[in-house]
Amino acid sequence: MVAKGLVDKLRSMIGAGAERVALTARGLESLRVQLRECADGQGGEVSARGRAARLAETYLSLNDEGRHRFLKLIALEFGPNPDKVATAHAAYQKAVGTAEQWKTEAALRGAMRSSRIRILTQFNAIPQGVKFLVDLRADLLRYLEQDRELAVLDRELESRLSAWFDVGFLELQRLTWNSPAALLEKLIEYEAVHEIRSWTDLKNRLDSDRRLYAFFHPRMPAEPLIFVEVALTDHLAGNVQALLDEHAPVFDHRKADTAIFYSISNTQVGLRGVSFGNFLLKRVIDDLKRDFPKLTNFATLSPMPGLAAWVRKHPQALVEAEVPLPLDELSTGTWAADRKMVRALSAPLNRLAATYLACAKQGGGDSGAPFDPVSRFHLGNGARVERLNFLADNSAKGFRQSFGMMVNYLYNLDDIEINLEAFASSGNIAMSASVRRLARKK
Amino acid sequence: MVAKGLVDKLRSMIGAGAERVALTARGLESLRVQLRECADGQGGEVSARGRAARLAETYLSLNDEGRHRFLKLIALEFGPNPDKVATAHAAYQKAVGTAEQWKTEAALRGAMRSSRIRILTQFNAIPQGVKFLVDLRADLLRYLEQDRELAVLDRELESRLSAWFDVGFLELQRLTWNSPAALLEKLIEYEAVHEIRSWTDLKNRLDSDRRLYAFFHPRMPAEPLIFVEVALTDHLAGNVQALLDEHAPVFDHRKADTAIFYSISNTQVGLRGVSFGNFLLKRVIDDLKRDFPKLTNFATLSPMPGLAAWVRKHPQALVEAEVPLPLDELSTGTWAADRKMVRALSAPLNRLAATYLACAKQGGGDSGAPFDPVSRFHLGNGARVERLNFLADNSAKGFRQSFGMMVNYLYNLDDIEINLEAFASSGNIAMSASVRRLARKK
Amino acid sequence: MVAKGLVDKLRSMIGAGAERVALTARGLESLRVQLRECADGQGGEVSARGRAARLAETYLSLNDEGRHRFLKLIALEFGPNPDKVATAHAAYQKAVGTAEQWKTEAALRGAMRSSRIRILTQFNAIPQGVKFLVDLRADLLRYLEQDRELAVLDRELESRLSAWFDVGFLELQRLTWNSPAALLEKLIEYEAVHEIRSWTDLKNRLDSDRRLYAFFHPRMPAEPLIFVEVALTDHLAGNVQALLDEHAPVFDHRKADTAIFYSISNTQVGLRGVSFGNFLLKRVIDDLKRDFPKLTNFATLSPMPGLAAWVRKHPQALVEAEVPLPLDELSTGTWAADRKMVRALSAPLNRLAATYLACAKQGGGDSGAPFDPVSRFHLGNGARVERLNFLADNSAKGFRQSFGMMVNYLYNLDDIEINLEAFASSGNIAMSASVRRLARKK
Amino acid sequence: MVAKGLVDKLRSMIGAGAERVALTARGLESLRVQLRECADGQGGEVSARGRAARLAETYLSLNDEGRHRFLKLIALEFGPNPDKVATAHAAYQKAVGTAEQWKTEAALRGAMRSSRIRILTQFNAIPQGVKFLVDLRADLLRYLEQDRELAVLDRELESRLSAWFDVGFLELQRLTWNSPAALLEKLIEYEAVHEIRSWTDLKNRLDSDRRLYAFFHPRMPAEPLIFVEVALTDHLAGNVQALLDEHAPVFDHRKADTAIFYSISNTQVGLRGVSFGNFLLKRVIDDLKRDFPKLTNFATLSPMPGLAAWVRKHPQALVEAEVPLPLDELSTGTWAADRKMVRALSAPLNRLAATYLACAKQGGGDSGAPFDPVSRFHLGNGARVERLNFLADNSAKGFRQSFGMMVNYLYNLDDIEINLEAFASSGNIAMSASVRRLARKK
Repeated sequence: MVAKGLVDKLRSMIGAGAERVALTARGLESLRVQLRECADGQGGEVSARGRAARLAETYLSLNDEGRHRFLKLIALEFGPNPDKVATAHAAYQKAVGTAEQWKTEAALRGAMRSSRIRILTQFNAIPQGVKFLVDLRADLLRYLEQDRELAVLDRELESRLSAWFDVGFLELQRLTWNSPAALLEKLIEYEAVHEIRSWTDLKNRLDSDRRLYAFFHPRMPAEPLIFVEVALTDHLAGNVQALLDEHAPVFDHRKADTAIFYSISNTQVGLRGVSFGNFLLKRVIDDLKRDFPKLTNFATLSPMPGLAAWVRKHPQALVEAEVPLPLDELSTGTWAADRKMVRALSAPLNRLAATYLACAKQGGGDSGAPFDPVSRFHLGNGARVERLNFLADNSAKGFRQSFGMMVNYLYNLDDIEINLEAFASSGNIAMSASVRRLARKK
Repeated sequence: MVAKGLVDKLRSMIGAGAERVALTARGLESLRVQLRECADGQGGEVSARGRAARLAETYLSLNDEGRHRFLKLIALEFGPNPDKVATAHAAYQKAVGTAEQWKTEAALRGAMRSSRIRILTQFNAIPQGVKFLVDLRADLLRYLEQDRELAVLDRELESRLSAWFDVGFLELQRLTWNSPAALLEKLIEYEAVHEIRSWTDLKNRLDSDRRLYAFFHPRMPAEPLIFVEVALTDHLAGNVQALLDEHAPVFDHRKADTAIFYSISNTQVGLRGVSFGNFLLKRVIDDLKRDFPKLTNFATLSPMPGLAAWVRKHPQALVEAEVPLPLDELSTGTWAADRKMVRALSAPLNRLAATYLACAKQGGGDSGAPFDPVSRFHLGNGARVERLNFLADNSAKGFRQSFGMMVNYLYNLDDIEINLEAFASSGNIAMSASVRRLARKK
Repeated sequence: MVAKGLVDKLRSMIGAGAERVALTARGLESLRVQLRECADGQGGEVSARGRAARLAETYLSLNDEGRHRFLKLIALEFGPNPDKVATAHAAYQKAVGTAEQWKTEAALRGAMRSSRIRILTQFNAIPQGVKFLVDLRADLLRYLEQDRELAVLDRELESRLSAWFDVGFLELQRLTWNSPAALLEKLIEYEAVHEIRSWTDLKNRLDSDRRLYAFFHPRMPAEPLIFVEVALTDHLAGNVQALLDEHAPVFDHRKADTAIFYSISNTQVGLRGVSFGNFLLKRVIDDLKRDFPKLTNFATLSPMPGLAAWVRKHPQALVEAEVPLPLDELSTGTWAADRKMVRALSAPLNRLAATYLACAKQGGGDSGAPFDPVSRFHLGNGARVERLNFLADNSAKGFRQSFGMMVNYLYNLDDIEINLEAFASSGNIAMSASVRRLARKK
Repeated sequence: MVAKGLVDKLRSMIGAGAERVALTARGLESLRVQLRECADGQGGEVSARGRAARLAETYLSLNDEGRHRFLKLIALEFGPNPDKVATAHAAYQKAVGTAEQWKTEAALRGAMRSSRIRILTQFNAIPQGVKFLVDLRADLLRYLEQDRELAVLDRELESRLSAWFDVGFLELQRLTWNSPAALLEKLIEYEAVHEIRSWTDLKNRLDSDRRLYAFFHPRMPAEPLIFVEVALTDHLAGNVQALLDEHAPVFDHRKADTAIFYSISNTQVGLRGVSFGNFLLKRVIDDLKRDFPKLTNFATLSPMPGLAAWVRKHPQALVEAEVPLPLDELSTGTWAADRKMVRALSAPLNRLAATYLACAKQGGGDSGAPFDPVSRFHLGNGARVERLNFLADNSAKGFRQSFGMMVNYLYNLDDIEINLEAFASSGNIAMSASVRRLARKK
């Protein structure tokens, strides 16, 4: 019912980098009128769809400043009516403890309902509307950094996206070299941990000794939401370049007893706060166990993206770990060519990394969540810190963020629940004895 | 991660009629503890899933009284904290008009958030969890008739189901004789207007001069949510038995200029209030026009399910329409065998039906929504009352509810928006001149 | 490129029972011309397709006599040229033993190539062309009974169909209650052993304790070629009505150790001589073992369709088995209501059936293939006669053809090859000791 | 039933470049025994499958000499028995003209049946058996160049492959950027006309103003058999580099009136002689017309792969066309940088190419099939030579084979049948007036 031409135009605009223009004063006024109609639900659903399509087109045509004003208009002018809220609230409080409490609670909830979400969900009716909203939220999150008044809109949108992206709606798919090229191209674009350099590199990551899983939403079938790359092997892998070596022989997957999760990438900025990463690992482990009953070890080979940043804040840590090089030199990685220096750095960097994982907290104090985001993720999922790996990521990025150090987190299926409870309730960090020893040696 | 046996058990319980037991006092106490854990989100997601599965099993094992208490527990003990709401509300009202308004609005919304929905959405993680929740709401709606305190829970659940069943997530599918038998069997079960008597009857409704469309949700692929049956023909069909005659010759669909929607059935009681019927017709019309460019007329052949009930309330109407038989005799349909009586009833019953469609209102007054539910639906979608049909549904049900009368609603694509606006804003009922004349003749 | 209307017409004619007409003398002449053009391959492929479609239409429009003449025309007038064959043969024989032998062999083969197959394979280009040819061969086989001159055409067509229906091209599919209704309807139509009485009966045969497998050809996706019905159970089933009882409780398939093949039906008369039945059983067993690793016994519950017919030819067998009733009474089954008679018949009928399976031969002598066609099939596949079942098929058909007796053939995976070799080389019939003993007791 | 390990091994061997060994005398003897068993059909189908798998493994493990001997063994020792052929032939000739003719013809055909094809078709039962046989024939064709005695086997195998790859069994698929990467990778490998240089080049050929179609066989789903690349445009394209330019703007396909077939590649050497190319174009045109009703022109932009080779044989042609450069200089293409020389060569090279297309014949005489293979293909399909294009393929290959010249063949749907008949019956070459004029100007 939306004009075909407009649909095609929208399709090509979503995600494309067309030239974008400013929002004029007149444009703003017209926008206000359209949004008002939208909020009032005037006309039937046919009108609604056409209106949503036109609004989406306007939004996509605007530059960042224009989009910011578009969103701010929605945030500030389409909230609930404070007077109606007050009246409903008074009735509710009066009814507490009586049989009327539940009715008045529902009425208060009704008074709180804003037109913002009604406006936004109308976009769901346009083609690729879900992707449009996810991208709109990515914009919103950027503008939010400067303009906290948008937070009220962001919270409502996040809440709606959380309902839509409920993990029960997500589909786990294994991607292979037989998957659509357009989909595999997205992996190249979205890989956030260890860059995919070419189609050959990608093909290598989909070989018979590898697995790649992604979550999809039924209404965004062309967009992986999060994906994990897995290597099937017979040992706890300790070097990521070895894993990614295109010329390395293919391991006979029938002999595999270990699955190494060596890269996990979230792809949709606009879904920040809508978490499904922990479900992904669980379902991947289920799937792997069904396909390879001999698999007994499930572990990651993970970066420590916050190590260098933390050391910069706590230079004392270098001293305590007896690291013989200053931070800047450590970060270049040039020392890796010097065999003597390599020998000299091995023990200190292991100590430094162990201390970092055991003690570095967000906020900087002695308690709180771990400083390292990857660590937060895996510990929060019930894994334990298993082994540190020296010279494990020899890329420029690897040296820059963690002096080449990497870490294995181990998912021991029997301990997951216990670890997770201990971490959630008392912040307890599960660690192997060897890493714990290293952390104490400072 | 949920034990396989439990999953299988749940699968077989959902929708099945296993024997159900009472909720004991001890059971209630244990339930309260489990729901509390659920609301607090204790343990990881693995625990959550297992817990949801156990709760679902408990729910399904209970008899109606037990289920009612289960739901009431959630409704009454897991709402927001009135004191926190009061505090948040005070801060909000104080901030209105300042830069803090938006932050405090979000905080108030947060304080209003109840644990009820968190508990219910955890069921989404179990297999067929969406169907479980839809069926649970069907229970809830039944208990609600006696116990209005459940309304607060119902409103929250309806709101969540509305988000999940947003029309943007629904998929239109054409069902044919090549569709899975298990799916077609559901049509036999769910057809609510003109009973499907056998597989032969069903096959006839899927012949080359017929179309059958249904909406599906990606997480309930085995359950049509609503479906519409269409006959392709070259005239405005006026008798439903003729349409359903298995022995009638198949019409050459390439000659069709008219699509008759002769049956529309909602299937999920638990989705009451979550409307998608209007979208269905629009998308079906789009699809038909693409397949059959010659189609120019889109109309229904609809029952008037409220006619007899309304006459019972307004016996005067029979007199005004000069109907020569009393209500009870009209309802049996035995008069249809008497040719003289048939001739005598034709004009009066047409007048009666026209008056009914033009004037009968919910509430009984002169204004408000139409009394007839089918009329409300089609007028609300922009159709107009086109033609009345005497002796159009000769089934016992047809006589009982509307003395054999049926009506065609016409969807004129150019007028839909206008009709719909006029109906929505001023209750104006679009009618063909001939039916309007009949209505005036009283 | 074939006119759309013609394609639609053909589609509706294939398999349908339209009225058919006689072939006129003029029609015959026109047919000869068209077939000649067809054989000469005049015009391009576009012409060829159009011509094939017209010829197919002609064929389908003819009555049996007309079709017979159509086929006879092809058989007798489009064979190889005897003179060219003679020349090529002379060259071949002369070259035998020289380097030219192979070239002349190919040339002789070329001279033997007839236009018949070229004509017939052109039908493959029309929609549903393969089904058309299979149905044409079914006609041919009927006409062949009266007219042996058609055999030359039949042999060529059978040879081509054998190439096309090579078992490597067939796809094994499991059919379930989720399969297309149109496909399941075919099962009802084609079931040849134990009639499917209703959709409820069919659904029962697709329940969780059943399996139904069929072979399909990629170009006849709507037509099962052969199918087998399997019951999962925990014992060697001995009564087919018990298996087909719709009200019997569903067996928990996870406890199954035995798979009973209780019905195998070939569906395409036109594929007689193109065998794939033996592959079906093997692939079904493979599939079952993968899904149910606990399955250890694979057996049939089979009819003895030739028993009564054989007894009619060898009335002496009744005497030798000491059966106390005459053939006609045995066949009615009325005795089954008389408990005394049931007791009296049990041992004699078991003896009779054992003798039949052990000794009755095609041709009537002491050697040769078994008289019973089902026995030939299973013994030829490596099964052994395991157990006889008295009062095992209490249907009218069951009494009529085998006095209610049925037999289990056992597929012992370790013995299949040995049984099969022994049967193929020396006609040895594998039998359990108990049946063998019965057979000897005459 | 074939051991799982062997199947996996075969799977990895087919198409892979494992090290291959010689056939020993003992190996040859063992092979003879196995082939004999195979020909005799000893044992059941289970044995047959296992045997086929072992034979395939042996074949794949052999070096070229070994494979050659393997195939020769089949060719020479498994043919028909000349004595039996003689007897059957005598009976046949005697029966000619009598009612017995048809029976004896069938018997002679039976006597001619060799075991070769029985051996080869058994390979069809192994996984990827069809691909195995197609690759085996590719080997056979290579060995055949040196050893004509293999021709007898080749003819039988070609005949069987022709039956299997009957165009009625092939599926036309449109490949897009959403097709499996593994399939698209095959296009890169198989493109035979204009090399695909990268995934970016490939993606450009799958853009919205392009179409790529391929034929597939149901049993070789991962292997395109032949594919054609199409550009949608609004003019008769005259330069292939312009078409392949990744940076050229995408043409709005809704404005297209012309489809240019700019590359057609056969992929399976082993299917030589099994033609389906002409069907491909016809079905592609059908598909394009359905998707783009505005398309009215269907033409190729084709190479003239034989031009330089023909000039080498007929140097006089250069003189007659008044080409001012010698062959070797023409072939390098360096002259293309010299604007004066470009001007000087334009007319002569157009004349040369026109003459070549009009007059150059296979065999070198004045009659017969065109010398140019691409010309043979398109003229044989009913196209006409429409326009010559100077400096149309500026690649090294383009200059080497045709001095940069290319040609458009036009498929005028109304003329195809006429052109095709005229070409087939009298070798008449359809040409536009302008090209014909050029050809005459010599």
